[in-house]
Amino acid sequence: MNKVLLTAAVTGAGDTTKKSKHVPVAPKEIAEAAIASAKAGATVAHVHARDPETGGISHHIDHYREIVDRIRESETDVIINITSGGGGDFIPSLDTPAAGGNGTDMQTPAERHEPVGELLPEMCTLDCGSTNFGNMIYLSPTDWLREQAKLVQASGVKPELECFDTGHLRFAKQLINEGLIDGDPMFQFCLGIPWGAEADVETMTYMKNRLPENAYWSAFGIGRMQLPIAAQAAMLGGNVRVGLEDNLYLSKGVFARNDQLVEKAVTMLHGNGMEVMTPQEARENYGLRNPNGGIKS
Amino acid sequence: MNKVLLTAAVTGAGDTTKKSKHVPVAPKEIAEAAIASAKAGATVAHVHARDPETGGISHHIDHYREIVDRIRESETDVIINITSGGGGDFIPSLDTPAAGGNGTDMQTPAERHEPVGELLPEMCTLDCGSTNFGNMIYLSPTDWLREQAKLVQASGVKPELECFDTGHLRFAKQLINEGLIDGDPMFQFCLGIPWGAEADVETMTYMKNRLPENAYWSAFGIGRMQLPIAAQAAMLGGNVRVGLEDNLYLSKGVFARNDQLVEKAVTMLHGNGMEVMTPQEARENYGLRNPNGGIKS
Amino acid sequence: MNKVLLTAAVTGAGDTTKKSKHVPVAPKEIAEAAIASAKAGATVAHVHARDPETGGISHHIDHYREIVDRIRESETDVIINITSGGGGDFIPSLDTPAAGGNGTDMQTPAERHEPVGELLPEMCTLDCGSTNFGNMIYLSPTDWLREQAKLVQASGVKPELECFDTGHLRFAKQLINEGLIDGDPMFQFCLGIPWGAEADVETMTYMKNRLPENAYWSAFGIGRMQLPIAAQAAMLGGNVRVGLEDNLYLSKGVFARNDQLVEKAVTMLHGNGMEVMTPQEARENYGLRNPNGGIKS
Amino acid sequence: MNKVLLTAAVTGAGDTTKKSKHVPVAPKEIAEAAIASAKAGATVAHVHARDPETGGISHHIDHYREIVDRIRESETDVIINITSGGGGDFIPSLDTPAAGGNGTDMQTPAERHEPVGELLPEMCTLDCGSTNFGNMIYLSPTDWLREQAKLVQASGVKPELECFDTGHLRFAKQLINEGLIDGDPMFQFCLGIPWGAEADVETMTYMKNRLPENAYWSAFGIGRMQLPIAAQAAMLGGNVRVGLEDNLYLSKGVFARNDQLVEKAVTMLHGNGMEVMTPQEARENYGLRNPNGGIKS
Ligand SMILES: [Zn+2]
Ligand SMILES: [Zn+2]
Ligand SMILES: [Zn+2]
Ligand SMILES: [Zn+2]
Repeated sequence: MNKVLLTAAVTGAGDTTKKSKHVPVAPKEIAEAAIASAKAGATVAHVHARDPETGGISHHIDHYREIVDRIRESETDVIINITSGGGGDFIPSLDTPAAGGNGTDMQTPAERHEPVGELLPEMCTLDCGSTNFGNMIYLSPTDWLREQAKLVQASGVKPELECFDTGHLRFAKQLINEGLIDGDPMFQFCLGIPWGAEADVETMTYMKNRLPENAYWSAFGIGRMQLPIAAQAAMLGGNVRVGLEDNLYLSKGVFARNDQLVEKAVTMLHGNGMEVMTPQEARENYGLRNPNGGIKS
Repeated sequence: MNKVLLTAAVTGAGDTTKKSKHVPVAPKEIAEAAIASAKAGATVAHVHARDPETGGISHHIDHYREIVDRIRESETDVIINITSGGGGDFIPSLDTPAAGGNGTDMQTPAERHEPVGELLPEMCTLDCGSTNFGNMIYLSPTDWLREQAKLVQASGVKPELECFDTGHLRFAKQLINEGLIDGDPMFQFCLGIPWGAEADVETMTYMKNRLPENAYWSAFGIGRMQLPIAAQAAMLGGNVRVGLEDNLYLSKGVFARNDQLVEKAVTMLHGNGMEVMTPQEARENYGLRNPNGGIKS
Repeated sequence: MNKVLLTAAVTGAGDTTKKSKHVPVAPKEIAEAAIASAKAGATVAHVHARDPETGGISHHIDHYREIVDRIRESETDVIINITSGGGGDFIPSLDTPAAGGNGTDMQTPAERHEPVGELLPEMCTLDCGSTNFGNMIYLSPTDWLREQAKLVQASGVKPELECFDTGHLRFAKQLINEGLIDGDPMFQFCLGIPWGAEADVETMTYMKNRLPENAYWSAFGIGRMQLPIAAQAAMLGGNVRVGLEDNLYLSKGVFARNDQLVEKAVTMLHGNGMEVMTPQEARENYGLRNPNGGIKS
Repeated sequence: MNKVLLTAAVTGAGDTTKKSKHVPVAPKEIAEAAIASAKAGATVAHVHARDPETGGISHHIDHYREIVDRIRESETDVIINITSGGGGDFIPSLDTPAAGGNGTDMQTPAERHEPVGELLPEMCTLDCGSTNFGNMIYLSPTDWLREQAKLVQASGVKPELECFDTGHLRFAKQLINEGLIDGDPMFQFCLGIPWGAEADVETMTYMKNRLPENAYWSAFGIGRMQLPIAAQAAMLGGNVRVGLEDNLYLSKGVFARNDQLVEKAVTMLHGNGMEVMTPQEARENYGLRNPNGGIKS
């Protein structure tokens, strides 16, 4: 298929809700952003839950459930992709460095998997390693990732193997070699995060050249690299991702809505002579599970 | 200067002492390995301290002091490079994931800096980020690294900026941009570690192409990639590192001594038409401090 | 300047006039195609002359003069770029291999330069080497190129250094080192020609990475790679070229007009968040000569 | 097989005989250089014939025959690789540019093939395109190359597909796709020639990455890049070539004999932990023909 899967990452878990009023917070807002993105052309809506009070990250299954239910009950078709990144934020305490200090939010593999396992979306992310992430560390030890991969595998949900740097790509291939990823693997190159791999076409090419032969891939760049990386990924044969999780701006100084970023990506793809994949085409192309949760189709 | 700086990393902190009897453990053994490596042609001896009882990592300043004193008091000239990696090993506990479990060994920036600050070697390493390292996480948050960089800067010791993956290289450049690294920076690309950047010539070229213009660099590959990466680094204009910290074998199934690995590297360099830099040439070339500790020369 | 120079190569000299009725042949048609392309957004019109009777290549100064006069006399502003490729087609005879056989069309450097020297456009091309070109050889010995470069230099016309393969890029840099190219050099990577360099982003990146620091560059791909290479060049910071010289199709099976290909490129650039450079902006940016011929401004 | 095929290109056809007295000229000298190279460790001897009077290129079958006979009759085993580059030198005349002037030496495909077809060595070269070569053009049109490839194919000699630039590599793959190359193809990347592809590891990697899956490859660099390119090729998994055809010097200002360059390459390979392939191993590995000419074994 010569079409491009377009993911809208509508909210993320970052400290962005105070910066832009367009970042959806409440489950209803997040579902509406997903639906609006789908109407604007997105194939996939990638969601995190947030605490409606604080705007910060939420691990509450009820928040996830409301988001998913609202999207499924709408008349707009879109593939739901739930994060399984969960609680992986760690900042060691200067006083007792073997324990997390302020800003730490750590969950076990089983806890991180909970919204995926409970709600059975068609896709989920799986972050394939640890890395400095600003002044925080995103922590995911290899054995915990093996455990999560097994849980995802048992659930029939299609994992998107997120790689923040080249070593994560190596470990993602290790998971595949260990038989923990079913079907043709899907990778997501997360580019430009401080301090992961750079957001440029040489980095993307380097990573793409190291994929298994049967792999599909996507890439996103953060901030002002969102559209350029989307365009370059599409032209290198990859899928693309945009949305407020990765970038708050439509243009310099102008805050974007998710559906506006999706529209811009659609225009970009058309301008480059490409078409967006529909949810139904993606289901067939990647062999996704039953979109309505429940038993695997 | 068209010569190649050759580092012998004689012991490291890994779980290798039970695998090979040649891995030096006691301060005297480590000093002797450094001296033998220098006699075999090494420009620099990179040392960690180990607990003479267990063979495991030691943070004891006395162990470091004995190693350094013995090398300085010998008649063999060699540049001493002390690790400042210190305690950065973290494995979250499944029971209380915000705290380290078995295998965790965490120190603060000041603690990690102690052997460098006390003993004032000519060089030290500085690991520029966090990453999965086997099933452990090597943890070094960015603010802690800034703190360590300042301590190193104040000491006049030349830091070797270790990059386990491409994001570490980005952060090393950030430290430079923030004015925390004096003089022409020296980088060390640490290749092949699970789960950091791959040990191959394309990865090395990618990283080399992203260095600041005034940077010097070195690279090493672990295991059987030790000699190939040394050869390729030298031919791309970089410095090289060998030794038991990174590789235990002389050839398949044959355990090596440090000085044998150094000899092999010297033979390789000569075969490729290159010469090894002497400690004195390195001092002039890189502007290193007083080799005998004490006040900065 | 963060804008993209867009060249329309409206006709070329290839054997295309029988394939598509949209390839302009008569001087009037070529001028009209240039003007229509400019109206559609092109910054530069790159022209060859053709024999109005046969559709084949013409070296007649009168044909070039009519094309240039018609464009200059129109009310549409566009930078004129005349080929200086001239007669460089050679096919050795099987009977007497040291002489050209059927299909051979060879001119001296002075003859190749004639339309540029006489008509003094703002820009011209300069093909920086020899290569197989289908079953023909495009022949331009290095001393002849030096001679042509001197003639172009004396004329004040800005040469676009065309590179069909990586060795041409090396020789173009040699011309610069020999002082034969004035000002900041402009390169054109001609990609996908059988049998020159491949039309893909890795090849373009390879070539771009080898440019002198003060160089500007553009790239085009032939056939179906026209739009992808234009998009990728623009995103890598280069200029772009489209038009019937390089590609006859708007989409599969649908023949294009030049202005349609220009429109498509403009849409692509806008979709990727970029703007097209006006002729006036290009003049200022690149220090071009008097657009009306005559004495250098 | 994890061994490296080492070719000695003992004389070539370049204007080098006046520069170094070590360049062999007479058939006896060329055969002796090949034998000495084999004794020094070369797997393959690549030969051109020269005119014993002038030192310039010779197309005389008798010269080739004497070289080959002397090597075959010696007690030293070596694979013979005869050039099929033949007469491909062209410099257009300024007076009548469609004909070759001074320095031109052109042969038809059949003439170029004659020494290969007559003497049936185990290997021959096949230059896969045209390019500027100093101020001369090396001329080989695509249809002539197809014709030569068919002659080589019929002879059972293994062609080494020489690529002076990236477009030659594209055409070599075209020959393979057209069924004109039997067995697993062997490529030779000829790097650093003015004006072909650059002699550096990035260029070599670029070319290597574009080979067919079943291809073997070798590379050489000219002049002072001879040893570095040999080392880098070997470390990237390729074969290597040294000798006076490509480089006259042992070290700065010191002229080399062929066997000295071979010795240096052997030392380099051993230093890098590699072994040289014997002629017999190469025969088995690449499926070469009967080494004694005559009917294909
Ligand atoms: Zn996310
Ligand atoms: Zn260390
Ligand atoms: Zn043209
Ligand atoms: Zn040859």
